[in-house]
Amino acid sequence: MADILIDLIRQNKFQQARNEILRMNVVDIAQLLEELSNEHVLIIFRILPKEMAAEVFSYISFDQQRYIIESITDKEVQSIVDELFLDDAIDFLEEMPANIVKKVLKNTDEATRKLINQFLNYPESSAGSIMTIEYVDLKKEMTVDQALGHIRKTGVDKETINTCYVIDSNRKLEGIVSIRKLILSDGETLIKDIMNTDKIFIHTLDDQEKIAMLFKKYDLLSMPVVDNENRLVGIITIDDVVDIIDQENTEDFQKMAGMQPSEQEYLKTSIGTLAKNRIIWLLVLMISATFTGNIIRGFEDVLQAVVILAAFIPMLMDTGGNAGSQSSTMIIRGMALGEIELSDMAKVVWKELQVSLIVGTALAVFNFIRIYFFERVQFEIALTVALSLFLTVVLAKVIGGALPIAAKKLKLDPAIMASPLITTIVDAVALIAYFSMASWFLGL
Amino acid sequence: MADILIDLIRQNKFQQARNEILRMNVVDIAQLLEELSNEHVLIIFRILPKEMAAEVFSYISFDQQRYIIESITDKEVQSIVDELFLDDAIDFLEEMPANIVKKVLKNTDEATRKLINQFLNYPESSAGSIMTIEYVDLKKEMTVDQALGHIRKTGVDKETINTCYVIDSNRKLEGIVSIRKLILSDGETLIKDIMNTDKIFIHTLDDQEKIAMLFKKYDLLSMPVVDNENRLVGIITIDDVVDIIDQENTEDFQKMAGMQPSEQEYLKTSIGTLAKNRIIWLLVLMISATFTGNIIRGFEDVLQAVVILAAFIPMLMDTGGNAGSQSSTMIIRGMALGEIELSDMAKVVWKELQVSLIVGTALAVFNFIRIYFFERVQFEIALTVALSLFLTVVLAKVIGGALPIAAKKLKLDPAIMASPLITTIVDAVALIAYFSMASWFLGL
Repeated sequence: MADILIDLIRQNKFQQARNEILRMNVVDIAQLLEELSNEHVLIIFRILPKEMAAEVFSYISFDQQRYIIESITDKEVQSIVDELFLDDAIDFLEEMPANIVKKVLKNTDEATRKLINQFLNYPESSAGSIMTIEYVDLKKEMTVDQALGHIRKTGVDKETINTCYVIDSNRKLEGIVSIRKLILSDGETLIKDIMNTDKIFIHTLDDQEKIAMLFKKYDLLSMPVVDNENRLVGIITIDDVVDIIDQENTEDFQKMAGMQPSEQEYLKTSIGTLAKNRIIWLLVLMISATFTGNIIRGFEDVLQAVVILAAFIPMLMDTGGNAGSQSSTMIIRGMALGEIELSDMAKVVWKELQVSLIVGTALAVFNFIRIYFFERVQFEIALTVALSLFLTVVLAKVIGGALPIAAKKLKLDPAIMASPLITTIVDAVALIAYFSMASWFLGL
Repeated sequence: MADILIDLIRQNKFQQARNEILRMNVVDIAQLLEELSNEHVLIIFRILPKEMAAEVFSYISFDQQRYIIESITDKEVQSIVDELFLDDAIDFLEEMPANIVKKVLKNTDEATRKLINQFLNYPESSAGSIMTIEYVDLKKEMTVDQALGHIRKTGVDKETINTCYVIDSNRKLEGIVSIRKLILSDGETLIKDIMNTDKIFIHTLDDQEKIAMLFKKYDLLSMPVVDNENRLVGIITIDDVVDIIDQENTEDFQKMAGMQPSEQEYLKTSIGTLAKNRIIWLLVLMISATFTGNIIRGFEDVLQAVVILAAFIPMLMDTGGNAGSQSSTMIIRGMALGEIELSDMAKVVWKELQVSLIVGTALAVFNFIRIYFFERVQFEIALTVALSLFLTVVLAKVIGGALPIAAKKLKLDPAIMASPLITTIVDAVALIAYFSMASWFLGL
């Protein structure tokens, strides 16, 4: 399908192509455009109906958006910006260089220009920067029929009509009423009698993490945003929240793997940026690993006497690291989902201690048998390895469980703090215990 | 607020409590119930209006659901099950022991019983097990007014009326029409003239990962589910998809930290289950680390001659592990979000190679300076460490980038495959290079 279309376009059979395209979903059209040259993109873009063009525009890549705006006339810019929902316009302007922003602002009326400037001033990831102002507002004195009439008159420009917002003369939010309630109610009913006054809302400066949490908790489809005087200024819709959830998760994945978080897609990120995002934490972690190295150097005489001890260092360190990251991942994820609270610290530590005693014992016994009976290593060394392994697993799991919560208590980011600190502490203690026990058991 | 309510309930002032509760959001009521004793939960539950009780029921914990069903009369069970949306009923029944399921099924009419049994037979995480059958269906010959009338008559029992589904006499899906379109269209318009025929749907047996992908791609609020004959059998709504996204992410986090994935909340998982989920991968990873140990034992004579070489093993291994997991995390996440395709393998490897050359050089130079000038270690050893580090970083990043894609090509789970294999390969190659270079440079 896409291939045939691309062929039609490349053969300049635009009329035929247009008929096909008009039957497609806008998301699929945007995806199709990704595969075409800029010139063809521009042609397709111009044969689309105005409203569809704006929708497709909101789905294409920033590079193509930029190319289109650079290439089209002022009048065309105006018609796209008019049709775009404000939140999509903001998303796009935030990524554009100054000359593009200027060209766009020049072609909007003063009211929109003011609004756009106001939106661009909200901090990134705040409710204000995510919200849209295209919502349906009702008055509580309206009847259902009047409300439906109002929706019919204004609804076409709204991002959603599924939930309507009831405000007073000062734009203060008084209640929420769903389209379902409106349709299922008698025409004469007053809005105030059917509106839901249990309002769940958020402030313009609240962070997106909180927004996602509320949407999930209350299974919302949209949520009102209010300013400092509790006046309704916009709404956030679930489609943006789904993107936020993905973003927040990607951030956590990146932090937990020791990288500077970045919102950009991997394939679209430059080599330099990728290197920069990664090198800082690699350096920090590398330096922390030199502590471990120093401990080994401190036990050089023990190692000199029994070189085979070195052979078990990787296993001890790897297992400690893995055991710790299992625990910290569970806890960091639990906190991100709101399942684990700061007050659960004692419960978590106690749980991790119990789990680690089971896991540590099992691994230690397994290793002792393997090393003593199968690898036929000296009894004292096998015992040292097994006991150190046990201690390492217990320590790693308890610290892995406690540290993320402690970090959050100290208002640090658990996802960033956890891994390097846990590795450093666990590695250091494990090696000190290992060499001390070895020198004691072996009488060095 | 919650505290006052709990006090009222504990003092048996139920009438007063009821008035407060009726003004609360059902999610908050469910949360309140978590803090009460079973007896009080039952009392509150019984004073709620029928419809509200069913909604609250769908939000409380499985333990409380179980207690309530065990304690109430058959007639009360019937009224709850009647009010529950089918997908919520299934969610709950899937977690209940046989005696509870029996008590519930006994108290439903035959049609519902048959439906429930059918739903319980869909594989876990399939579209069939997630969908609900409470949707609005329309015929394409209807006028908008007739459609709205139909919605008014049947809508109260539907999970959503925001999107309606147009089917033919064989229940085959013909189109989709939003409530917005209905409201904004003229009453005499025929449904077939306004319905969207660009249907995005899914099959009953399709996996939830695919569902989430489609919802995100097309910004959907609901999606139709069809059977093998393309007949409409249910719909999936966005609130369930948000839960799926969280679930899938949690699974990926757990797998990438080397654990058996589990859907249960951490604090509600038993010690035994936690230990079991973690021990298998720890064992696998531990055994793979013994390969690394064996390599060290193979170079025992080199190590015996220059014991200080052991001091740099942790740094080499940690940096290799970190560099590799940075890359594999980026790629696994990119694939999960659909940003990286199997066909991008070459692009990814080339990108990782370039990044790793920059990062590897920087880390190697930094280390050489630190070791040679500050720790005043022999030139040949400092050089060996720096070169090995460079090689390790390059290898780790290239393998870290390529392996997840290769795993997916082989239909293996990238999140599970990546970490242990990468660690083992990188550690092994790094140590062999390290000791070989050392013995060569030092003329051993």
